[in-house]
Amino acid sequence: MPLDNHPTASMIVIGNEILSGRTQEANLNYIAKGLTANGIKLAEGRIIADIEDEIVATVNHCRARYDYVFTSGGIGPTHDDITAAAIARAFGKAFISHPEAESILRDYYGDALTEARLRMALMPEDAVLIPNPVSSAPGFSVENVYVLAGVPSIMQAMFDWLLPQLKGGDVIHSTTISAQVPESRVADAVAAIQQRFAEVDIGSYPQIKNGTFGVSIVARCSDTDLLGQVADEITLALQDHTDQVKVGEL
Amino acid sequence: MPLDNHPTASMIVIGNEILSGRTQEANLNYIAKGLTANGIKLAEGRIIADIEDEIVATVNHCRARYDYVFTSGGIGPTHDDITAAAIARAFGKAFISHPEAESILRDYYGDALTEARLRMALMPEDAVLIPNPVSSAPGFSVENVYVLAGVPSIMQAMFDWLLPQLKGGDVIHSTTISAQVPESRVADAVAAIQQRFAEVDIGSYPQIKNGTFGVSIVARCSDTDLLGQVADEITLALQDHTDQVKVGEL
Repeated sequence: MPLDNHPTASMIVIGNEILSGRTQEANLNYIAKGLTANGIKLAEGRIIADIEDEIVATVNHCRARYDYVFTSGGIGPTHDDITAAAIARAFGKAFISHPEAESILRDYYGDALTEARLRMALMPEDAVLIPNPVSSAPGFSVENVYVLAGVPSIMQAMFDWLLPQLKGGDVIHSTTISAQVPESRVADAVAAIQQRFAEVDIGSYPQIKNGTFGVSIVARCSDTDLLGQVADEITLALQDHTDQVKVGEL
Repeated sequence: MPLDNHPTASMIVIGNEILSGRTQEANLNYIAKGLTANGIKLAEGRIIADIEDEIVATVNHCRARYDYVFTSGGIGPTHDDITAAAIARAFGKAFISHPEAESILRDYYGDALTEARLRMALMPEDAVLIPNPVSSAPGFSVENVYVLAGVPSIMQAMFDWLLPQLKGGDVIHSTTISAQVPESRVADAVAAIQQRFAEVDIGSYPQIKNGTFGVSIVARCSDTDLLGQVADEITLALQDHTDQVKVGEL
């Protein structure tokens, strides 16, 4: 479905712990919601390992293709935190101690500053800092690539600070209409509505609870008038099968 | 870190609802855990939209690069379920009604069979079925690409059936050692251990709970002797900072 006049974004999750199954990925959904609310379309997500070549190739692919690229993970003080160095390589920039980041770390740690902690000031030359109100070590951006922490509380604080500064698009509104009807029973009717309203993105999501099948139909569009028309038609289509049609999730 | 003699895999999550933030992705972690337990290395995850060209390009990229490719999402009866057609196009195969799948659907739905429901039998020619014990409509595989449902309960049942049939590798064992010490205080010691044990993949994962910093160091390796040595060394390194070192997560 076309969602025009919306900047595009991708998110790159960096971390072996996600790919091994140790950790449930928790940052993409937060970023997706924030972008959607600001009319920015998350077009793609990637989950990649802590391998420098992979990070470089993925960042370079995504930054050429999308308006914004967000990364999460791999900017801490340990041997497996290689994101910052990989970003420098992706941009062909020197990897140096950022004076402002170094000063933030010196203030925060005082006498407890160690070489490992100081390494968190190493960034691509001319990186722009993203503040970290939780544990001080900042994230950074280079051009359209925004490098965020992996720990969810820190990632969220960084993203919340960043989001108002990004140029968004028309807000994409959405309406959900749900009923305890198997989606296959309304598939043809919903397809016909989609055909007539190409500007509205209609998704059909089945649910199974206690052996009962239900469906949530989600319509998304910047134009609230169109969205209202589509929501009414979907409601009618579901009412052909049950009186219990709900606006919202089941 | 080298993890040799392990088949590789990628997972492609297909669905606008994940990228819009409506739905928290819930399948990758299940697949990651199952693969890891069987010595198969999940090398990459992708989250892409319901766009046929994207699905075709991503599947063709991944199936050439990895031993196994798993997809989730987009195989239902509705207009936005386009995965099966895209897989047929990716392989240059005809997109036809699979006789065995059609017969499963006829048995399950009986008189309630509709055209929409019958569409769930459409698959690439010569696809091999993957049973669906929840709602009958099967998944399928073509060569090294395994096409699974998006609804977690169905996806899990399909994957559980599939996993014992995949050729795995040496099981990758893991040990986690945790303490309430900021990871930056043990970063150098852990880096030195990693340097001496290149065959062991050591990850350092910070935690923040109620303003207190902790760390979990995860060591992963097929060789349990090596893993034990590394775990002992990590424990000693953490004990330099606290008596409360725990084997397992904090």
